[in-house]
Parts: sequence; structure tokens; C-alpha cells
Amino acid sequence: MDLSQRRVRVCPVRAYGSTPGAQAQECAWEPFDQLLFATGAVPVHPDVPGVGAQGIYGLRTLQSGIELREAIDRDSPRRAVIVGGGYVGLEMAEALIDRGMDVALVEKLPQVMNTLDPDMGSLVSDALREYGVHLYLEESLVAFEVQDGHVRAAVTDRQTLPADLVILGMGVRPNTALAVEAGIPTGERGAIRVDQAMHTVVDGVWAAGDCAESLHLVSRRPTHVALGTVANKQGRVAGINIASWFSGADGSAGATFSGVVGTAMTKVGAVEIARTGLHEAEMDRLGIQYASARIQARTRIGYYPGAGQITVKVHVEKKSGRLLGGQIVGAEGAAKRIDVLATALHAGFTVQEVVDLDLGYAPPYSSVWDPVAIAARQALKLV
Amino acid sequence: MDLSQRRVRVCPVRAYGSTPGAQAQECAWEPFDQLLFATGAVPVHPDVPGVGAQGIYGLRTLQSGIELREAIDRDSPRRAVIVGGGYVGLEMAEALIDRGMDVALVEKLPQVMNTLDPDMGSLVSDALREYGVHLYLEESLVAFEVQDGHVRAAVTDRQTLPADLVILGMGVRPNTALAVEAGIPTGERGAIRVDQAMHTVVDGVWAAGDCAESLHLVSRRPTHVALGTVANKQGRVAGINIASWFSGADGSAGATFSGVVGTAMTKVGAVEIARTGLHEAEMDRLGIQYASARIQARTRIGYYPGAGQITVKVHVEKKSGRLLGGQIVGAEGAAKRIDVLATALHAGFTVQEVVDLDLGYAPPYSSVWDPVAIAARQALKLV
Repeated sequence: MDLSQRRVRVCPVRAYGSTPGAQAQECAWEPFDQLLFATGAVPVHPDVPGVGAQGIYGLRTLQSGIELREAIDRDSPRRAVIVGGGYVGLEMAEALIDRGMDVALVEKLPQVMNTLDPDMGSLVSDALREYGVHLYLEESLVAFEVQDGHVRAAVTDRQTLPADLVILGMGVRPNTALAVEAGIPTGERGAIRVDQAMHTVVDGVWAAGDCAESLHLVSRRPTHVALGTVANKQGRVAGINIASWFSGADGSAGATFSGVVGTAMTKVGAVEIARTGLHEAEMDRLGIQYASARIQARTRIGYYPGAGQITVKVHVEKKSGRLLGGQIVGAEGAAKRIDVLATALHAGFTVQEVVDLDLGYAPPYSSVWDPVAIAARQALKLV
Repeated sequence: MDLSQRRVRVCPVRAYGSTPGAQAQECAWEPFDQLLFATGAVPVHPDVPGVGAQGIYGLRTLQSGIELREAIDRDSPRRAVIVGGGYVGLEMAEALIDRGMDVALVEKLPQVMNTLDPDMGSLVSDALREYGVHLYLEESLVAFEVQDGHVRAAVTDRQTLPADLVILGMGVRPNTALAVEAGIPTGERGAIRVDQAMHTVVDGVWAAGDCAESLHLVSRRPTHVALGTVANKQGRVAGINIASWFSGADGSAGATFSGVVGTAMTKVGAVEIARTGLHEAEMDRLGIQYASARIQARTRIGYYPGAGQITVKVHVEKKSGRLLGGQIVGAEGAAKRIDVLATALHAGFTVQEVVDLDLGYAPPYSSVWDPVAIAARQALKLV
């Protein structure tokens, strides 16, 4: 890549990166007017003995999912070890239990889902154990035992867990090797720095998706969120602006990506999990003065069949009363309620304004006061 | 009631209203410092021959619901006619079909749920027919046929519908006879005029619930919404303010009820229905220049089991791009999405701001672009 000459060196996929023997003549320099980095993210791989053994899988692409499923169908593994308690770890734990496997999940932190507060994370841990997962918190992976080239066990700093199959779900990092090499500045967690048009600091060079930063609308700081929703929106904005450049517009009326509030959701069995905004560890780091309210309610009105439990936690800024974040763990219908808090965060609402919201009510869908509003009412008392 | 003397005449329940023979000595004057009207609403009763017959039920209180259920258990009616296609009509239609009855629903307008636009209302009509309801639109009730004191048929301007049971679901009106008699001003649709503290125009007299007005936050005009969510919030605000008066506070820091955006929801069988904001008829009446986008999407990501269809319609103000309202009809998980649009209406968001929302995504709960955001994107093109 040669930004001063406005050109990139393009090689066939097989020749790039992992295949050092690629012939130079297979590659060619291509000129560009506008350049978009959409290089995504790469899974974090642990640097431990045995990590290259067969039977150890990361999940990055559709193809890697297909290969994993084929291996399971072919080898019928009985014992699975999952390393990492994030979204991939949780969803794979559920999927492998559903396939009848004995599943252990190892997480080095004291909780799974570290974008939740510890008290909410412990509800997720409960859900995992309830679903049949052997959960080992505060254990670090140190090695894999390998026999005949195939993984036989995962070794932690506390024990050896027999494994026919290992899933690595240790998170991702922005895939920015090319960008860094070309001198494009990166920022928060190594993601490419961009403005709200998705333009990098280099003229005519753009970035979007899991390789790019986002503005966090609550902290007003750059952040890195590697989720499909964000990537999709960023790509749309970058695409509009690049197309606008080619059509001769000056870009002043271009598209912008306003930012994120950190909304995310998943599930473990029938337990729905969602979060948005800042959580305690982030607020502590930022020195924000906050209070937190946690309530239990029902997903439907109490007398309606199928009503399940829902726990909602909200964070409120001291003095200003501004909503700072929220987390939800509960039964069917729980998770999507996070969208009310996410929208309120976009609006910069106080918890009083959340209490005032005219939310939908009918017995099959909610109590008269939606659980989200009940949590906001509780938070009102703490401002 | 004698407001100038700050006193009300209180009679035992049996002596008030429908029992003209009540003895005057049963009643007594009670002085008050602060007075709250929480008289609710009364069902609209049609002034047609035979309306007083046995087997004809309105639904106002828990007790009236219990009496209806007892009558059904006792008499095992086979043929039911429901008059009115609002929430009560729809929910009773579902309930009576579930009890194995043959159910006809008569609505004088060309659609049920007249707080929906006609195109969305027709989806609800489809759902009713699909559920087994005989739906007769644009038919007016003219009389009931009565035999031995019991209803035998409902007569419309087009036909005679045999009926063992009749449910009147013709809406409600504010129960303000006492207030009007005492000279308390009423406004929109006859509801008691109040400020945001829930105080009427008469000093020390308050009103809350189905008898009181609300401010519509989109039209900025008074409106009347007789729903439990609104009543509950209004009652809380009035209660705080009245208690504050008694505790000697000057009320300047009192509670306020900011207003409504007209959110409501219900269901017919598995079809969920929700609405918020202004609908076409209201906007036409107010002379608002608007455009409307309607999209079809899926409640979950397409490949996920249980994904169902969802139709979302949003209204946008021409030029400003401001969101004005939205309506949703669809499968499980559809209705509560209205809360995003309701919250966006509270915030005064444009449809661009709805597109930008960081809403929750996971395959079991949504497509990458939530259906609500897809509708907002469509509306962007119409501004």
C-alpha cells in the first residue's frame, strides 16, 4: 500500500498473508481515488502450547461455522471446552448442549459477559449452569494437551479439562495490520480512527465496520464495538459518502454515523440478556458519579399465562439525573426492552423522562408500568 | 357539590344516581381542602330499542367481567354478537371464539381499530376473520330483538344477527357528570381540563385518570386517552402534588405529567397490534403535511426458527423529517417494538435519528436492521 502514490498492491487471496511462498508476479499495483478499509476483526488467539492442534476452532466467518458443524457431524465429539464467556462462548455453549455434548466453559474473569455489571453477569452464570454448562470462572487457559495432532484436553491454571472439541471465544480485535502498515492512525483498542463520515485522517481514505472506531454517545469518547448492526450502519454511511464523491458532490451534505450507545443482546436457553450504555467498570474508569437501581418484575401482567421474571438495572448520573445505561436479564420478551433504554440514551433523557414515557401496555406484553419504567422510578430515588 | 363552600355531598353508593328513592338523610356534607376527581369513564351505551334486555353486557369493571363469565358458564350461549371494533371488541371476540362460540362483530366504520390507518386496520380485519370472527364493517346497530326479556338478535341497518349474548364495546366517555354539575371546565371530548400537575382550573381541585385530559406531545394539543397506563401515571402525579400540599410545600417543585403520545396495543390470536403518535385521519384534521412509509420484514432474522412477518408503518413530517407516528401489526415480538417509536416521539426525533438508533440485535430477536429502523429508512426517502 502506497498512500502517497494513491495505489494499493493487490494479490490473489492465496498469496496474501499466511502463504509466504506467494510469487511476487501474482500481485499488481492498483491505483485508487478513494479507498475503504473494511477489513473487519480477527479473533484473539491464545499463545499457548498446543493451540494449533486439530479440534480447536475459532469462529470468524460463515465458512468457519460450516467447518465446525461438519467436524461435529463427522467426529461426534462428546466433551467440549469453550474458552471465553462472551457472546460467541455463550451461544456456542447453548448450541453444543443442544447437540448433547458435555460442555465446560472457562473464563478468566470472575464473570461471563464482562460488558454486564457483576450482579447481572451472575444471573447469566446461573442461566448457563441451569442449562447444563460446567462453568469455571477465574481460570486461565495455559495449554492444550495434544495426542496424534488432535486436542485431548484444555489445561487451565487450576485443572485439566478433557476435550474432544475446543471453541475459542476470546473476543476479537480490529484487523488493522494493513492500515497500520500504511500509516493510518488507530485509536481506541487499535481500531482505525474515523470521523462521523467514516473518513480516516488521511484524505480519500475511509474505514467502516469491525476495523473502525465509533463515537460512544454517552461517554462522548471513541470506542470500538465489533457488532453487525454497527458495521452495517457504518458501511452504509461510508458507501453513501464515497459514491457522493464520485458523483461530484462536495460531501458537505454527506451521510454521518452519529455513534453508538453500546447496545447488545444474546440469550442462554430461554434466558434473554441485553445491555446498553455504560456499565459500572466503564463509569468507574471515567470517574462518573452514578447510582444504580435494580428491580425484578414480570414480562407480562401477573395474571396472564406465560408471565416470566425480568430483572432490569439502570444507571443514573448523580445530580443531573441523566440515564447512563441499562441491563436486562429475563424471560421471553425481556431482551428487546433494551431498545427503550437505548433510544432514551440517544435522546439524552433523564430517568424522570424515562418514567414519563408513554410505553405500550396490554396484559400479554407488559405490566401497566413497563419493567423498564419501574427501574427508572426506582432510580429516581437515588439521584 | 359546593365548590364555593369547599364541601361535597357524600351519599352511600346505593343512594347515589340510579336509585332515585334514596333518603336524603343518608347523605351528608363533607368539607375538603383538596379535591380529586378520579371518576373514570363510562361505556357508551347505544340508544336503541331492546338495549336493556338480559344477555347484553358492557364491560367496565372487574365485577362486570366476572358477571359476564358467570353468565357464560351458566347459560352456555352459542351465538355472540359484539358491537364495536375497538380494544374491548377485539379482545372479547378472541375470548369468545376461544370458548367455542360463534362470534359476529359489527362495526359502523369501514375498519376496526379506528386509531389505525385504514391499510393497517385491514390487517387487523384479516386477523379477525382468520381467527373465525364474522366481521361486518360499515353496519350500524339499530335495535335488539328481545324475547321473554332476553336478547335474541342484533338488528343492523343491513341484517338481523341471531344472538344469545351481546357485548357492547362502543368505547367510553369521561365520567364527568359530577364535575360538570360543579362547574369544572371540560375540554377535548368532554374530559376535565387539567394542567401538567393534574390540577383543574379551580383552586384545590384536581383530576386524574379516564375522566381527565392529557397533552398530546406530538400535536401539542389536549387529548383524551382512557388507558390504564395514562391513568396510573396521572394518579401518581396528582397524589404526589396533593400530598405535597398537605405537607406544606408550595407545590413549585411538584410532580408533572408531561403528556402522552397515544401508544396502545392489543392482539387478535397470534397477531400483535400496536400504534403510537398521530394517524392519518388526525394529521389530515390538523392540516399536517406528512408522508407515510410501510414495510414488511421479519420478527427474527430470516434463518432463525419462529421468524414471523411484521408490518411497520411510520409517518414523517414533510420538510422537517420529524417522526409523527407509527403502527405495527405482526407476529410474536412485533407489538412491543412500538416502544422505540413512542420513545422517539417523546424525544422529537426525525426519522434520520430513528435510523441512527443503536437498537439491539441478535438473530432470535431481530434482523440486523430492526423492522422499525427499516421503516424509518424507507420514510427518509419521502421527506
